[in-house]
Amino acid sequence: MFITFLSDFGLQDAFVGTCHGVIKRIAPEVEIIDITHGIPPQHVLQGALVLCSTLPYMPEGVHLAVVDPGVGGSRRALALRDGQGRLYVGPDNGLLIPAAERLGGIQAAHELANPEYALQPVSRTFHGRDLFAPAAAHLARGVALEELGPPVAPEALARLDIPQADVGAGRARGTVLYVDRYGNMQLNLTREDMDQLGVAPGTRVELECRGERFYAVAARTFADARPGDIILYEDSYRNIAVAISGGNAADMFAARAGDRIEVRLTMP
Amino acid sequence: MFITFLSDFGLQDAFVGTCHGVIKRIAPEVEIIDITHGIPPQHVLQGALVLCSTLPYMPEGVHLAVVDPGVGGSRRALALRDGQGRLYVGPDNGLLIPAAERLGGIQAAHELANPEYALQPVSRTFHGRDLFAPAAAHLARGVALEELGPPVAPEALARLDIPQADVGAGRARGTVLYVDRYGNMQLNLTREDMDQLGVAPGTRVELECRGERFYAVAARTFADARPGDIILYEDSYRNIAVAISGGNAADMFAARAGDRIEVRLTMP
Amino acid sequence: MFITFLSDFGLQDAFVGTCHGVIKRIAPEVEIIDITHGIPPQHVLQGALVLCSTLPYMPEGVHLAVVDPGVGGSRRALALRDGQGRLYVGPDNGLLIPAAERLGGIQAAHELANPEYALQPVSRTFHGRDLFAPAAAHLARGVALEELGPPVAPEALARLDIPQADVGAGRARGTVLYVDRYGNMQLNLTREDMDQLGVAPGTRVELECRGERFYAVAARTFADARPGDIILYEDSYRNIAVAISGGNAADMFAARAGDRIEVRLTMP
Repeated sequence: MFITFLSDFGLQDAFVGTCHGVIKRIAPEVEIIDITHGIPPQHVLQGALVLCSTLPYMPEGVHLAVVDPGVGGSRRALALRDGQGRLYVGPDNGLLIPAAERLGGIQAAHELANPEYALQPVSRTFHGRDLFAPAAAHLARGVALEELGPPVAPEALARLDIPQADVGAGRARGTVLYVDRYGNMQLNLTREDMDQLGVAPGTRVELECRGERFYAVAARTFADARPGDIILYEDSYRNIAVAISGGNAADMFAARAGDRIEVRLTMP
Repeated sequence: MFITFLSDFGLQDAFVGTCHGVIKRIAPEVEIIDITHGIPPQHVLQGALVLCSTLPYMPEGVHLAVVDPGVGGSRRALALRDGQGRLYVGPDNGLLIPAAERLGGIQAAHELANPEYALQPVSRTFHGRDLFAPAAAHLARGVALEELGPPVAPEALARLDIPQADVGAGRARGTVLYVDRYGNMQLNLTREDMDQLGVAPGTRVELECRGERFYAVAARTFADARPGDIILYEDSYRNIAVAISGGNAADMFAARAGDRIEVRLTMP
Repeated sequence: MFITFLSDFGLQDAFVGTCHGVIKRIAPEVEIIDITHGIPPQHVLQGALVLCSTLPYMPEGVHLAVVDPGVGGSRRALALRDGQGRLYVGPDNGLLIPAAERLGGIQAAHELANPEYALQPVSRTFHGRDLFAPAAAHLARGVALEELGPPVAPEALARLDIPQADVGAGRARGTVLYVDRYGNMQLNLTREDMDQLGVAPGTRVELECRGERFYAVAARTFADARPGDIILYEDSYRNIAVAISGGNAADMFAARAGDRIEVRLTMP
C-alpha cells in the first residue's frame, strides 16, 4: 500500500521526517512516496496544480497533501474518495479538489473528526503531524473513510480560484502557473489556445511580462532552438511554457508564479 | 527494523545517499527514515534539539545522527542504549544526549572501536559513511551493542551547554533555539514561564531582539491573529514561539538561532 | 532489487517524486536509493563524477542517472551493463561512462528504442519520467537489457572531456571538480601528485585561484589545523581537497566547479 505525500514543508526542517515517523508507527508496512515538499510556503494554488499534474503518475493509494495557511482556525480537515477509488487527506482549502476532479470526481468527503484516528492532544499548529498523517496511515491500513468523521457534501467544500486564460485577436493573456528549477515558466495556456491564436512551431511571437517585452519563437523542444533563444513550447504536462535554450527564463523575465503574461503575434 | 537518520549533510551533495547505500549493502531489509538533513552545518546544539523533539514520533529502532565538526580528531564515536531500548549511533559531542535522556536515560554507552563493523580503511573526514552508518546497519541487523567496542561511563560523555531561560519581574530572557522554513522562531521558554510572567492569550507584550523592539500579542494559534500581527504562542513541541500571521518573523527580526530575546509586559 | 537514482532535478519541483511514482507503478517491489538530485542544473561532468565516486558504496542493481541538457534532441537514450553486472540507464552524453569504466568496463550498450518499455506518448522534455524511469523499472523487474533496443558499440558512445592535472617543477595545476555544502573544494589532484610535488602533511603551500593567492598547509584532517587555517588534504574519495578549518573555503576563494587552481611550493 502506498501513501503519496506533497507539502510546503521543505526539507530543511524535520516536518516531513516527523510525518514519516508518525505514519510508520501506525502503519509500518506502508510505503511513502514524496511527490515534493517544495511547494512555496502556504501557496495552496501551486500545491493543488502540482498534485493534479502528478497524481496520474502515482500508484493508487492514499494521497496526503498539506499546504495549510489556515491551520488551527476554522477550516475543516478532510478525507475524500475520487471516482477511481483513490483516497485523499488534507485541509479543506481547495488543495485536493483539482486532482480529485481530474481523476473521476469527488465521490465522498468526510471531516476528520474522530479522535481515535489522530494523535492526542492535537496541536494547534502542526496538523500534518497530529491529524493528517495519522488519518492517511489509518486509511492505508484499511480503516473505512466513513470511520474518520461525518460526511460533508462535495459542493460545500472550499474551492480555489484558478486563473483563466483569455485568447483574443492576435494575443493570448495568461498567467505564470509555476516556475521550475531550470527557470522554465509554465503558463495556463494550452496547445489549443496556441492553435486558436495561429501559433505553430516556427512562429515568432512577442511576450510581455512585468512591463517588459521579449521576442520568442514557438518550438517543439529545447533542441530545436539556438542557445539563448527564448522558446514557447508544450511542456510535459501539456501546458504551454517559456524557456531559454541553455538559460533561465524566469531570471531573465524576473517572473514568478502568479504573474500575468501576454503572448502576441508579431507583424509579418 | 527502522533506522532513523538526522544530519547536517544537506541534500545537495551525495553524503546522505552514500550513507543510505552503505546501510543497504549491510542490511538490505532495514528501512531508513530521514528525520532531516537540514541541520545548519556543524551546529551540534540544533541537531541535538531537533533529535530530542522528533524522536518520540519515530518508531523504535536505531537512531543515527551525524553533526560532527570534530571528525578525524580525538572525539570518540559512540553507540548508546536508552531506557526504552532505543539505540543511538553518532559522535561523542553531546548530539545524542538530550534525546537519550528524555527517553529513559542512557543505560549503556560503547565506543565504536571494532574494525569489523566499519568500512575499511576509515577515512579521516567522512565517518558518517565509514563508521556511523555501518555501525547503525549492524545494530539494526541484531549485532549486540557490546560488540561494537569497549564501554564508556555515561558520565564521561561530552555534553552540550543548553541555553537556560531567566524569568524575572515583568520580563523573561530567553534564546532563539530554532528558526523554521516559515520564519517562526522557537524560544527556550515554556508555557510555565509565560504563566509565571502573567502572559495569557490576549496579553500584549514587548519583544526585544538584536536591539530592536516589537509589539506582539499572545495567542493560541495563527488563526487568532490578524494578518501582520506578531504573535507569541505555544508551538507543537510545547515551546513558546514567535510568528507573524501571514509573514516571516525571523526576517522581520533579522533573527537567527542563538540570538537572545526578551519578552516584557507592557504597561496597562 | 535496488534502483539508485541520481539527477540534476533538485527537490523543489516534483520531477524526482514523479519518477518515483512511475517506477513504483511498474515495479512496486523495487527499492529506490536517491544518491543525490543536487547536481547543478545540466552539469553533466559533475553528475558523471559523483556517480563514479558513489557507485562503489551502492548495492548492485539498476543505476538510473539523468542530467540531460540534450533532451528532445538527437542524443540517444541508453542502457548499459558493466563488468560487474550492474545496469545503467541514462542519456548518451557521457554521464554514465566514468562509473561504468571504473566498475569493470562497458560490456554492452543498448539504445532505448522499444516503445513497450516507455510511457506513451513520450514527451519531448521529460525523458526522466517517460523513458529512463520506465526502462530502469523494467530492468529491475528482470527484463533483459537486449529487449530495450538495438545494441550500440561501446566505442560509439559520447564521452566527456575530463579535466587533466599538470604537475611540473614546484607547482601542480588542477581544476576544482566539486564544491560541497561545507565549502570544501575537491580538486582533480591525487596524493600521488602531491608526492611528486613534494608536499606532505605539514608542508606549507601557496594556492592561486581566480587571480588571488592564499597560504595553506597540507594536513591529514581538519582536526590537525587551527580554526581559520586553509588546509590541503586527501578527502574521503581520495582526491586532494581544500578546506578551511571551521569555515567555508569556496566562499573565501569565490570558487566554483570548473575553476583552475594552482598549488605551489613556497620558498623555505
